[in-house]
Amino acid sequence: MNKIPINLTRIQKAATQMTGIINQTPLITAPWLGRARKIQVHLKLENLQITGSFKSRGALIKILSLSKEQLDRGIIAVSAGNHAQGVAVHAQRLGINATIVMPAHTPVAKIEQTASFGARIVIYGETLTQSFEKANTLIEEENLTLIHPYDDPFVIAGQGTIALEMLTQCPEIDTLIIPIGGGGLCSGMAIAAKAIKPSIEIYGVQSIHCPSMIQALYSERSFIPQELHRIPIAEGIMVKNPGQLPQKILKEHLTDILAISDDHIEDAIDKLVTCGKLVAEGAGAAGVAALLAHGERFKGKTVGTVICGGNIDSRILSSELMRALVRQGKLIRLQIQLHDNPGSLGKITKIIGDEGGNIFELTHQRYFSHLTIKMTEVDVCIETRGTEHARQIIHQLQVESFPTKFVE
Amino acid sequence: MNKIPINLTRIQKAATQMTGIINQTPLITAPWLGRARKIQVHLKLENLQITGSFKSRGALIKILSLSKEQLDRGIIAVSAGNHAQGVAVHAQRLGINATIVMPAHTPVAKIEQTASFGARIVIYGETLTQSFEKANTLIEEENLTLIHPYDDPFVIAGQGTIALEMLTQCPEIDTLIIPIGGGGLCSGMAIAAKAIKPSIEIYGVQSIHCPSMIQALYSERSFIPQELHRIPIAEGIMVKNPGQLPQKILKEHLTDILAISDDHIEDAIDKLVTCGKLVAEGAGAAGVAALLAHGERFKGKTVGTVICGGNIDSRILSSELMRALVRQGKLIRLQIQLHDNPGSLGKITKIIGDEGGNIFELTHQRYFSHLTIKMTEVDVCIETRGTEHARQIIHQLQVESFPTKFVE
Repeated sequence: MNKIPINLTRIQKAATQMTGIINQTPLITAPWLGRARKIQVHLKLENLQITGSFKSRGALIKILSLSKEQLDRGIIAVSAGNHAQGVAVHAQRLGINATIVMPAHTPVAKIEQTASFGARIVIYGETLTQSFEKANTLIEEENLTLIHPYDDPFVIAGQGTIALEMLTQCPEIDTLIIPIGGGGLCSGMAIAAKAIKPSIEIYGVQSIHCPSMIQALYSERSFIPQELHRIPIAEGIMVKNPGQLPQKILKEHLTDILAISDDHIEDAIDKLVTCGKLVAEGAGAAGVAALLAHGERFKGKTVGTVICGGNIDSRILSSELMRALVRQGKLIRLQIQLHDNPGSLGKITKIIGDEGGNIFELTHQRYFSHLTIKMTEVDVCIETRGTEHARQIIHQLQVESFPTKFVE
Repeated sequence: MNKIPINLTRIQKAATQMTGIINQTPLITAPWLGRARKIQVHLKLENLQITGSFKSRGALIKILSLSKEQLDRGIIAVSAGNHAQGVAVHAQRLGINATIVMPAHTPVAKIEQTASFGARIVIYGETLTQSFEKANTLIEEENLTLIHPYDDPFVIAGQGTIALEMLTQCPEIDTLIIPIGGGGLCSGMAIAAKAIKPSIEIYGVQSIHCPSMIQALYSERSFIPQELHRIPIAEGIMVKNPGQLPQKILKEHLTDILAISDDHIEDAIDKLVTCGKLVAEGAGAAGVAALLAHGERFKGKTVGTVICGGNIDSRILSSELMRALVRQGKLIRLQIQLHDNPGSLGKITKIIGDEGGNIFELTHQRYFSHLTIKMTEVDVCIETRGTEHARQIIHQLQVESFPTKFVE
């Protein structure tokens, strides 16, 4: 059978089933994001959803579709992140046994949060594929029912309720921009939105470092994925095997999928904090990243996007905020040469202070230097008002005869 | 005349005047904050207000009360923070000349943001009192009209609209907890809330490091303010001279004022980010801090509090997040003694890794040590799962004969 087994009616039923359990999250405007490009931007705050992401919607609808026998035997899910918590929270509330298989690299915070909902945690495998194999063994041995994170009509129907809410909160939305990992969120929302407002345009967003759905849907495009030479920031949209059912749905409903890099995502996370006063995880910031990277395509439009999750590690967020200051030239590092005698350092710090720079960190480098023994080098981190101010500080140091090098 | 010149009707009129200009901000539940203490907590997200704080409400209502002559001559405000932006944004929209006097220590980011709305910025004075003197000179010279940040009935009426919205969004709220700086926010909200629901209880929140309103209203209490030996994190509630009109209003309507320390505020900022996915500045987190510090007083209640601002410096927020990890024992610093020979460091790092600790930073200390020349000391920062895990790592290092000291 080739018919898609979900429609608006099923999604509306899901919305009814959620009442009192799932938050109807706020939809807010974001003039800081759209004004310069004449885009009306509306952000759907699923980072304020229970368990900090949209995943608890789909998980609930799937669980409610199971028979009493299935519930009594218990459920199982494979996830290193938000789906784990989404499943565990409902299992706890309904008094069902839940098993979550997590790969070995899962951050401790996510393990602990999932365990705090009373789920049995099984740590297994280096990859999600290996974890899935373990889950299949447990399913056979213990007769458990799998709650798939995206390739399931009930899960997709659950995620689709977000579009219902958005188009009720702001019927003027004419464009949706939706992050794609496995594709459950985007396909559920696409079905609902297209049924309510056939003229609406739906754009997916994927990471250029893992463009699996782009390659599945647009194989005719010559598209060179860009490798990422650091730990990815948006695990939620780095899914190697996009769902079969989502592929079918998205093929029918999608206008396009936009590719974004991790640099765009880092920028989006920072802007959400500093301008939007909101905390988003990498995948949660993907829609904003797409608007930053591809804004010109949406000029004059009324765009809705989903901040689909807020579960970011404190330490990562802390670094992101500092890295953004570095990118903006508001935190700079200079290498300054000076004579190794009393008073030299005093002169340098005075120049920087007089120019309005705030010294953040200072280290001496004496031994590993190509300079003569009478010279030394200091490494100074300085807070500035931005690139122009930074240039002025460097200029003044050089004018006063301190050779100064800007360190990238 | 002793009559308070604001009432519910005036506040309702203010709400009408705001339509289409001021955001009706979301009111969300915060089970992460209330569940353990059986408190229903509702957060009013004024950090998502235009200019990132509630101040733009009061400023608008005051500006709309001025005559055409006054508007043509221009307006002036004194502020190092949110009031400056609140005044400047409306002046720009209405095409009025605005002058903002800011003290010399004002962070550059706030100066630039205010200037970006087209206001004339005058940097003057070491304290707000000196800035006010400068403003008075400018008022005389240029015939400008002062927009006071809190001691003004129109400003107070503007802030009062927040209570109208909250009690419409959740009529069950029986307790309000409201940060107090000058007292404008709290007094406006108190008038509106008490008029709509006379049984509601209103609590103010002040910093224990600057309890000016507590001392003004409850002078009979023996109350020893606690000095703060670092830069305050919640400038917004560190106001030395609380407003005269707010004092009169709060004397009539307040149940009590709760005192909180900067430690509570730091904790609240961190919890808002990690659990609430929201960015708050120090004063904006004061209501949450009060619930963390005085939760037992509100057991069984339905509490509403205002996240009144989100304008926190990236660098401060970044440090807060890391400091919270340190307080939770999730980031620890150890001093470990070892023999200064090949392989020693390898053994230590292996022990830490095997125990599941993640080394974050490592420095050698060779010269300034009381140890013999054959010994050296390393300073290691380690990420752990918390206090218990930290203890286990220290224990294992000691078992394997590396003297280890925990550094506070």
